Amino acid sequence: MKFQPPRGMRDIEPDEMAKQEFVCNRIKDILQSYGFQLVEPTALENFETLAAKAGPAIEKEIYAFRDKSNRKIALRFDLTVGLARMVASSNYPRPVKLACISNMWRYDRPQFARYREFWQWDIEIFGCSGEEADAEIIALTCDILDSFGLKYEIKISNRKLVEGILLDSGIKQKEILPVLRIIDKSSKVDEKTLVKELKKYTNKADIAKLGKIKSLDEIGSKNELIVKGREELKNLFSALKNYGRADKCIIDLSIVRGFDYYTGIVYEAWVKGEEKIGAIAGGGRFDDLTGLYGNPMPATGVAGGIERLMLSLKTIQPDKNPKVLVVYIKDFEKAMEIVQELRKNDISASIDLNKRSLSKQLDYANRLSVKFAVIAGPEELKKGRVRLRNMKSGEEKEVEINKLAVALQKNSFM
Amino acid sequence: MKFQPPRGMRDIEPDEMAKQEFVCNRIKDILQSYGFQLVEPTALENFETLAAKAGPAIEKEIYAFRDKSNRKIALRFDLTVGLARMVASSNYPRPVKLACISNMWRYDRPQFARYREFWQWDIEIFGCSGEEADAEIIALTCDILDSFGLKYEIKISNRKLVEGILLDSGIKQKEILPVLRIIDKSSKVDEKTLVKELKKYTNKADIAKLGKIKSLDEIGSKNELIVKGREELKNLFSALKNYGRADKCIIDLSIVRGFDYYTGIVYEAWVKGEEKIGAIAGGGRFDDLTGLYGNPMPATGVAGGIERLMLSLKTIQPDKNPKVLVVYIKDFEKAMEIVQELRKNDISASIDLNKRSLSKQLDYANRLSVKFAVIAGPEELKKGRVRLRNMKSGEEKEVEINKLAVALQKNSFM
Repeated sequence: MKFQPPRGMRDIEPDEMAKQEFVCNRIKDILQSYGFQLVEPTALENFETLAAKAGPAIEKEIYAFRDKSNRKIALRFDLTVGLARMVASSNYPRPVKLACISNMWRYDRPQFARYREFWQWDIEIFGCSGEEADAEIIALTCDILDSFGLKYEIKISNRKLVEGILLDSGIKQKEILPVLRIIDKSSKVDEKTLVKELKKYTNKADIAKLGKIKSLDEIGSKNELIVKGREELKNLFSALKNYGRADKCIIDLSIVRGFDYYTGIVYEAWVKGEEKIGAIAGGGRFDDLTGLYGNPMPATGVAGGIERLMLSLKTIQPDKNPKVLVVYIKDFEKAMEIVQELRKNDISASIDLNKRSLSKQLDYANRLSVKFAVIAGPEELKKGRVRLRNMKSGEEKEVEINKLAVALQKNSFM
Repeated sequence: MKFQPPRGMRDIEPDEMAKQEFVCNRIKDILQSYGFQLVEPTALENFETLAAKAGPAIEKEIYAFRDKSNRKIALRFDLTVGLARMVASSNYPRPVKLACISNMWRYDRPQFARYREFWQWDIEIFGCSGEEADAEIIALTCDILDSFGLKYEIKISNRKLVEGILLDSGIKQKEILPVLRIIDKSSKVDEKTLVKELKKYTNKADIAKLGKIKSLDEIGSKNELIVKGREELKNLFSALKNYGRADKCIIDLSIVRGFDYYTGIVYEAWVKGEEKIGAIAGGGRFDDLTGLYGNPMPATGVAGGIERLMLSLKTIQPDKNPKVLVVYIKDFEKAMEIVQELRKNDISASIDLNKRSLSKQLDYANRLSVKFAVIAGPEELKKGRVRLRNMKSGEEKEVEINKLAVALQKNSFM
């Protein structure tokens, strides 16, 4: 195992890479239709940049080290930090709509659907405080999930509202974060366990039932945080109606998101029947983050795991293989000419560069899973033709060489 | 400067990212037409994996560190190592044709066109010893450079041949590598300096003129290395003729490539008039590399810097901006509906989520450099129409809302 990737990391093999390219290209098309611009922040950040967001304790969870000039640097653990840092030091017209699809690293315990190097799509709007921005991000998330034919639900909550409810139930300000972390795990445990865990902080059993609240009207107006949080959610649902997306969204106050930096609306997208994968995307509003980098502005955004998305797309497997292997019998040069002509016409074509026997070439065609073999035998070549074999059905027919590219482009035979 | 990328690294801003996406997508299309499959090796490798190729001294030039379990790991410094390691531990049908476009890191002195994090396209064939494989890689390189309209030359040499000439001129085996390094720099110094530097090893002035040899027939058959190297080059040029690419290639024995692991054919692509950028791509045969990872097989490949390629493409700047800003006057909801309809039709469209005044919206449109503003005024909306403004010419015309998407797709007006 000496020459393998380090523990918890992996190579992306051709099959998965084809799927990843397919998924990422589709996401890029959709986010660009929304007017988002792609960027790529540096992969290695000054440790201070990461610690400014996540606190110095983040060092335990990431790849941090000193470079040869004794500067403390670290591999990014998300894309939001880099995007927020870029926006804070730039002069982009506001609202700024940025996106990035790339890899990041965390020193997590490796487990199912969780690697130490992983990929995310990440979409953010900076400089807009209105719920229209959150709605646009959620609508875009829906468009992305719809484009893959997924059945899902967007579970929406609000940090202010939940904090207001917690404070109202007698939980102290400094206990808010530990209680939020218990609530964050509530989808994974039964109500009894939840009540037990919460008992350390509150005796109000209501808190364990946060996730059961279906309507904002069930909550009184007991403090300012509740009033503000409820207003934000109402505005959000009204904006989501304009995007035609309110029907995909439900209130679920048990959603609080793990990160500390969220300031209001938070949400997660869950694929129905694939709950074991975890949330397929999650996001919310983080109005205080760019301020850490010297340029305060409201911000909201979403990120989703590419590996999780691919796991939930079981039936999608784009073809990574060449479409055609040109098989030669005597005249390698002529076969090469045919291959090059196909390539010029954007048909993915290969030839056995090892110039093996006919049967070995056909074996190579099988192992490559090409759809067609173009057999350039001397008799056919004399007539300006080749034999075209459908590798699945075994069917063959003769085709004129100068009609081959068009025929293969159109799939107009067999 | 606290919250900036670490020294020698950088963020990729929207303009450059659009260019990078454009360049990479075109390269992917071409390499896939040749039947190459994309993969992505892990970014962090066990240090041993990198040292196996480059020797333990490589540590000085890369980002190496220990993880929290005291494993020595390092960021990859090229893509060839990862690809070779993947192939060595896999069972892909041979010849294996793999490609990767990704980033890598070196602890270099930052300078013009040289960052500590940089991107390369990398294309390799494993399991084919014939010069057809080298010719295919070179033909593919030519197709890539041609597709960007570049004027270039492929300068080809052979390590065996050059080593044979050096040995024949009295240079000792152990002096070969230092002399190759002097020759590697010969394009940057005048002949006098070159002769002077070489004098330490040989008095034969011929060596300084290696780069002037135009025909293989000028070289005698003085030892086995020369004979073998010359034969490989002759076979390569004959294979290049089959690919219709011999005319782009010249013999230049001053090309030796920096890396030690090349075993035969080596080459570099140089863009005419852009010599200061350096070679735009370079590659060669490295038949001993996968053997280091436990599975010996012949191999040949090429890599090119994405940043250098972009630098040489001065006139290409793909549009990163949304095409349309929908400007609302009173009815934000209706404007939103129009935006969403355009997006569904793959037209990149945005709206001012901050709901500012008309003049500020038009200012936003200008700052975003959109081509068109769709002005949704109340009078026009009543008639089921909007005003469409060409932001460059200032021309305006009324368009029916239900014909807007098609008109914008076709650019069939103004």
